[in-house]
Amino acid sequence: MSKSELSLTDVTSPSCEVTPLTREPLTAAAAVELSGIFKALSDPVRLRLLSLIASHAGAEACVCDISDGFDVSQPTISHHLKVLREAGLLSSERRGSWVYYRVEPAALAQLSRLLDITLPAAATR
Amino acid sequence: MSKSELSLTDVTSPSCEVTPLTREPLTAAAAVELSGIFKALSDPVRLRLLSLIASHAGAEACVCDISDGFDVSQPTISHHLKVLREAGLLSSERRGSWVYYRVEPAALAQLSRLLDITLPAAATR
Repeated sequence: MSKSELSLTDVTSPSCEVTPLTREPLTAAAAVELSGIFKALSDPVRLRLLSLIASHAGAEACVCDISDGFDVSQPTISHHLKVLREAGLLSSERRGSWVYYRVEPAALAQLSRLLDITLPAAATR
Repeated sequence: MSKSELSLTDVTSPSCEVTPLTREPLTAAAAVELSGIFKALSDPVRLRLLSLIASHAGAEACVCDISDGFDVSQPTISHHLKVLREAGLLSSERRGSWVYYRVEPAALAQLSRLLDITLPAAATR
Protein backbone atom coordinates (compact mmCIF):
# COMPACT_ATOMS: atom_id res chain seq x y z
CA MET A 1 0.00 0.00 0.00
CA SER A 2 1.26 3.41 -0.86
CA LYS A 3 2.46 5.44 2.05
CA SER A 4 0.70 8.46 0.66
CA GLU A 5 -2.48 9.53 2.32
CA LEU A 6 -5.49 8.48 0.32
CA SER A 7 -8.68 10.39 0.57
CA LEU A 8 -12.01 10.16 -1.15
CA THR A 9 -11.94 13.91 -1.52
CA ASP A 10 -9.27 13.37 -4.18
CA VAL A 11 -11.60 11.44 -6.42
CA THR A 12 -14.75 13.43 -6.01
CA SER A 13 -16.05 16.33 -7.98
CA PRO A 14 -16.38 19.71 -6.26
CA SER A 15 -19.91 18.69 -5.32
CA CYS A 16 -18.44 15.71 -3.43
CA GLU A 17 -20.42 13.28 -5.56
CA VAL A 18 -18.93 9.99 -6.69
CA THR A 19 -20.60 8.86 -9.88
CA PRO A 20 -22.04 5.35 -9.61
CA LEU A 21 -20.24 2.66 -11.62
CA THR A 22 -23.43 2.19 -13.62
CA ARG A 23 -23.38 5.76 -14.87
CA GLU A 24 -20.00 6.11 -16.52
CA PRO A 25 -16.58 4.46 -16.61
CA LEU A 26 -14.15 5.54 -13.92
CA THR A 27 -11.23 7.64 -15.00
CA ALA A 28 -7.80 6.07 -14.55
CA ALA A 29 -7.00 8.56 -11.78
CA ALA A 30 -10.23 7.88 -9.87
CA ALA A 31 -9.67 4.13 -10.22
CA VAL A 32 -6.20 4.42 -8.69
CA GLU A 33 -7.51 6.39 -5.72
CA LEU A 34 -10.55 4.19 -5.15
CA SER A 35 -8.52 0.98 -5.46
CA GLY A 36 -6.40 2.17 -2.53
CA ILE A 37 -9.51 2.64 -0.42
CA PHE A 38 -10.83 -0.80 -1.38
CA LYS A 39 -7.41 -2.20 -0.51
CA ALA A 40 -7.88 -0.81 2.99
CA LEU A 41 -11.14 -2.81 3.14
CA SER A 42 -9.53 -5.99 1.78
CA ASP A 43 -8.32 -7.28 5.14
CA PRO A 44 -10.71 -9.19 7.44
CA VAL A 45 -9.32 -7.66 10.65
CA ARG A 46 -9.70 -4.16 9.22
CA LEU A 47 -13.26 -4.88 8.10
CA ARG A 48 -14.12 -6.16 11.57
CA LEU A 49 -12.51 -3.13 13.23
CA LEU A 50 -14.41 -0.78 10.92
CA SER A 51 -17.70 -2.56 11.59
CA LEU A 52 -17.06 -2.53 15.34
CA ILE A 53 -16.50 1.22 15.29
CA ALA A 54 -19.35 1.92 12.84
CA SER A 55 -21.84 -0.05 14.92
CA HIS A 56 -20.63 1.32 18.25
CA ALA A 57 -22.80 3.93 19.95
CA GLY A 58 -22.12 7.25 18.24
CA ALA A 59 -20.14 5.50 15.47
CA GLU A 60 -17.10 6.12 17.64
CA ALA A 61 -15.00 3.84 19.82
CA CYS A 62 -11.95 3.94 22.02
CA VAL A 63 -9.13 1.54 21.24
CA CYS A 64 -9.87 0.13 24.67
CA ASP A 65 -13.37 -0.84 23.41
CA ILE A 66 -12.29 -2.67 20.29
CA SER A 67 -9.27 -4.77 21.15
CA ASP A 68 -11.18 -7.69 22.62
CA GLY A 69 -12.02 -10.62 20.42
CA PHE A 70 -9.11 -10.22 18.04
CA ASP A 71 -6.41 -12.83 17.85
CA VAL A 72 -3.78 -10.24 16.92
CA SER A 73 -1.50 -8.02 19.00
CA GLN A 74 -2.33 -4.47 20.02
CA PRO A 75 0.40 -3.06 17.71
CA THR A 76 -1.16 -4.98 14.81
CA ILE A 77 -4.57 -3.52 15.62
CA SER A 78 -3.01 -0.06 15.77
CA HIS A 79 -1.44 -0.65 12.37
CA HIS A 80 -4.78 -1.68 10.86
CA LEU A 81 -6.51 1.35 12.38
CA LYS A 82 -3.81 3.56 10.86
CA VAL A 83 -4.41 2.04 7.40
CA LEU A 84 -8.15 2.73 7.72
CA ARG A 85 -7.38 6.28 8.86
CA GLU A 86 -4.97 6.93 5.99
CA ALA A 87 -7.61 5.67 3.55
CA GLY A 88 -10.00 8.31 4.88
CA LEU A 89 -12.41 5.75 6.35
CA LEU A 90 -11.71 6.65 9.99
CA SER A 91 -10.63 9.71 11.90
CA SER A 92 -9.03 9.68 15.31
CA GLU A 93 -8.78 11.95 18.31
CA ARG A 94 -6.74 11.61 21.48
CA ARG A 95 -8.62 12.28 24.75
CA GLY A 96 -6.55 11.80 27.84
CA SER A 97 -4.84 8.43 27.71
CA TRP A 98 -6.95 6.98 24.90
CA VAL A 99 -7.34 7.45 21.18
CA TYR A 100 -10.91 7.46 19.92
CA TYR A 101 -11.76 6.36 16.39
CA ARG A 102 -14.78 7.50 14.43
CA VAL A 103 -16.06 6.46 11.02
CA GLU A 104 -16.03 9.08 8.29
CA PRO A 105 -19.66 8.94 7.11
CA ALA A 106 -18.96 10.78 3.85
CA ALA A 107 -16.30 8.25 2.84
CA LEU A 108 -18.55 5.23 3.44
CA ALA A 109 -21.53 6.98 1.83
CA GLN A 110 -19.56 7.71 -1.31
CA LEU A 111 -18.33 4.12 -1.63
CA SER A 112 -21.92 2.98 -1.12
CA ARG A 113 -23.08 5.34 -3.85
CA LEU A 114 -20.30 4.21 -6.19
CA LEU A 115 -21.58 0.62 -5.93
CA ASP A 116 -25.29 1.47 -5.96
CA ILE A 117 -26.75 -0.50 -8.83
CA THR A 118 -30.27 0.78 -8.14
CA LEU A 119 -29.41 4.18 -9.59
CA PRO A 120 -30.30 4.42 -13.27
CA ALA A 121 -27.71 3.00 -15.66
CA ALA A 122 -26.46 4.93 -18.63
CA ALA A 123 -28.79 4.29 -21.57
CA THR A 124 -25.95 3.92 -24.03
CA ARG A 125 -22.32 4.67 -24.35
CA MET B 1 -5.79 -14.05 -3.60
CA SER B 2 -7.22 -17.39 -2.69
CA LYS B 3 -7.91 -19.65 -5.62
CA SER B 4 -11.19 -20.59 -4.06
CA GLU B 5 -14.31 -19.10 -5.50
CA LEU B 6 -15.62 -16.29 -3.38
CA SER B 7 -19.24 -15.39 -3.49
CA LEU B 8 -21.42 -12.91 -1.66
CA THR B 9 -23.97 -15.66 -1.29
CA ASP B 10 -21.63 -17.22 1.24
CA VAL B 11 -21.87 -14.25 3.58
CA THR B 12 -25.54 -13.45 3.30
CA SER B 13 -28.43 -14.70 5.28
CA PRO B 14 -31.05 -16.82 3.55
CA SER B 15 -32.89 -13.60 2.76
CA CYS B 16 -29.78 -12.41 0.89
CA GLU B 17 -29.48 -9.35 3.12
CA VAL B 18 -26.09 -8.02 4.15
CA THR B 19 -26.34 -6.10 7.39
CA PRO B 20 -24.92 -2.59 7.13
CA LEU B 21 -21.69 -1.97 9.03
CA THR B 22 -23.53 0.58 11.13
CA ARG B 23 -25.97 -2.03 12.44
CA GLU B 24 -23.76 -4.67 13.97
CA PRO B 25 -20.15 -5.90 13.91
CA LEU B 26 -19.28 -8.33 11.15
CA THR B 27 -18.63 -11.90 12.15
CA ALA B 28 -15.11 -13.19 11.55
CA ALA B 29 -16.39 -15.48 8.78
CA ALA B 30 -18.28 -12.70 6.99
CA ALA B 31 -15.24 -10.41 7.26
CA VAL B 32 -13.03 -13.04 5.59
CA GLU B 33 -15.46 -13.48 2.72
CA LEU B 34 -16.09 -9.76 2.23
CA SER B 35 -12.40 -8.92 2.41
CA GLY B 36 -11.84 -11.21 -0.58
CA ILE B 37 -14.47 -9.33 -2.56
CA PHE B 38 -12.96 -5.96 -1.61
CA LYS B 39 -9.58 -7.36 -2.64
CA ALA B 40 -11.02 -7.96 -6.09
CA LEU B 41 -11.94 -4.25 -6.14
CA SER B 42 -8.52 -3.13 -4.91
CA ASP B 43 -6.87 -3.00 -8.32
CA PRO B 44 -7.31 0.06 -10.55
CA VAL B 45 -7.53 -1.93 -13.79
CA ARG B 46 -10.19 -4.20 -12.28
CA LEU B 47 -12.18 -1.19 -11.05
CA ARG B 48 -12.04 0.38 -14.51
CA LEU B 49 -13.08 -2.88 -16.16
CA LEU B 50 -16.00 -3.26 -13.75
CA SER B 51 -17.11 0.32 -14.32
CA LEU B 52 -16.81 -0.08 -18.11
CA ILE B 53 -19.04 -3.15 -18.02
CA ALA B 54 -21.46 -1.69 -15.45
CA SER B 55 -21.94 1.49 -17.45
CA HIS B 56 -22.16 -0.27 -20.82
CA ALA B 57 -25.58 -0.60 -22.41
CA GLY B 58 -27.38 -3.44 -20.65
CA ALA B 59 -24.65 -3.63 -17.99
CA GLU B 60 -23.00 -6.17 -20.27
CA ALA B 61 -20.00 -5.99 -22.56
CA CYS B 62 -17.98 -8.17 -24.87
CA VAL B 63 -14.26 -8.46 -24.23
CA CYS B 64 -13.93 -6.87 -27.67
CA ASP B 65 -15.70 -3.76 -26.30
CA ILE B 66 -13.53 -3.25 -23.24
CA SER B 67 -9.93 -3.87 -24.25
CA ASP B 68 -9.30 -0.41 -25.68
CA GLY B 69 -7.75 2.24 -23.49
CA PHE B 70 -5.87 -0.15 -21.21
CA ASP B 71 -2.11 -0.17 -21.17
CA VAL B 72 -2.01 -3.88 -20.31
CA SER B 73 -2.04 -7.02 -22.43
CA GLN B 74 -5.16 -8.96 -23.36
CA PRO B 75 -4.12 -11.92 -21.15
CA THR B 76 -3.78 -9.49 -18.22
CA ILE B 77 -7.25 -8.13 -18.88
CA SER B 78 -8.57 -11.69 -19.05
CA HIS B 79 -6.92 -12.43 -15.70
CA HIS B 80 -8.51 -9.38 -14.08
CA LEU B 81 -11.93 -10.30 -15.48
CA LYS B 82 -11.49 -13.79 -14.03
CA VAL B 83 -10.72 -12.34 -10.58
CA LEU B 84 -13.88 -10.21 -10.73
CA ARG B 85 -15.88 -13.24 -11.85
CA GLU B 86 -14.50 -15.45 -9.08
CA ALA B 87 -15.40 -12.74 -6.56
CA GLY B 88 -19.00 -12.92 -7.76
CA LEU B 89 -18.99 -9.39 -9.18
CA LEU B 90 -19.27 -10.45 -12.82
CA SER B 91 -20.71 -13.37 -14.71
CA SER B 92 -19.67 -14.43 -18.19
CA GLU B 93 -21.21 -16.18 -21.14
CA ARG B 94 -19.64 -17.31 -24.40
CA ARG B 95 -21.56 -16.42 -27.57
CA GLY B 96 -19.87 -17.48 -30.76
CA SER B 97 -16.28 -16.28 -30.74
CA TRP B 98 -16.66 -13.81 -27.87
CA VAL B 99 -17.13 -13.93 -24.15
CA TYR B 100 -19.63 -11.43 -22.75
CA TYR B 101 -19.33 -10.12 -19.21
CA ARG B 102 -22.22 -8.84 -17.12
CA VAL B 103 -22.25 -7.27 -13.69
CA GLU B 104 -23.97 -9.18 -10.93
CA PRO B 105 -26.40 -6.54 -9.61
CA ALA B 106 -27.07 -8.38 -6.35
CA ALA B 107 -23.37 -8.47 -5.49
CA LEU B 108 -22.87 -4.74 -6.04
CA ALA B 109 -26.14 -3.93 -4.29
CA GLN B 110 -25.12 -5.87 -1.21
CA LEU B 111 -21.72 -4.19 -0.98
CA SER B 112 -23.49 -0.86 -1.38
CA ARG B 113 -25.88 -1.76 1.42
CA LEU B 114 -23.00 -2.93 3.63
CA LEU B 115 -21.40 0.51 3.36
CA ASP B 116 -24.65 2.50 3.55
CA ILE B 117 -24.20 4.90 6.44
CA THR B 118 -27.62 6.47 5.90
CA LEU B 119 -29.33 3.43 7.36
CA PRO B 120 -30.02 3.81 11.07
CA ALA B 121 -27.10 2.99 13.33
CA ALA B 122 -27.42 0.71 16.29
CA ALA B 123 -28.53 2.73 19.28
CA THR B 124 -26.20 0.96 21.66
CA ARG B 125 -24.13 -2.12 21.87
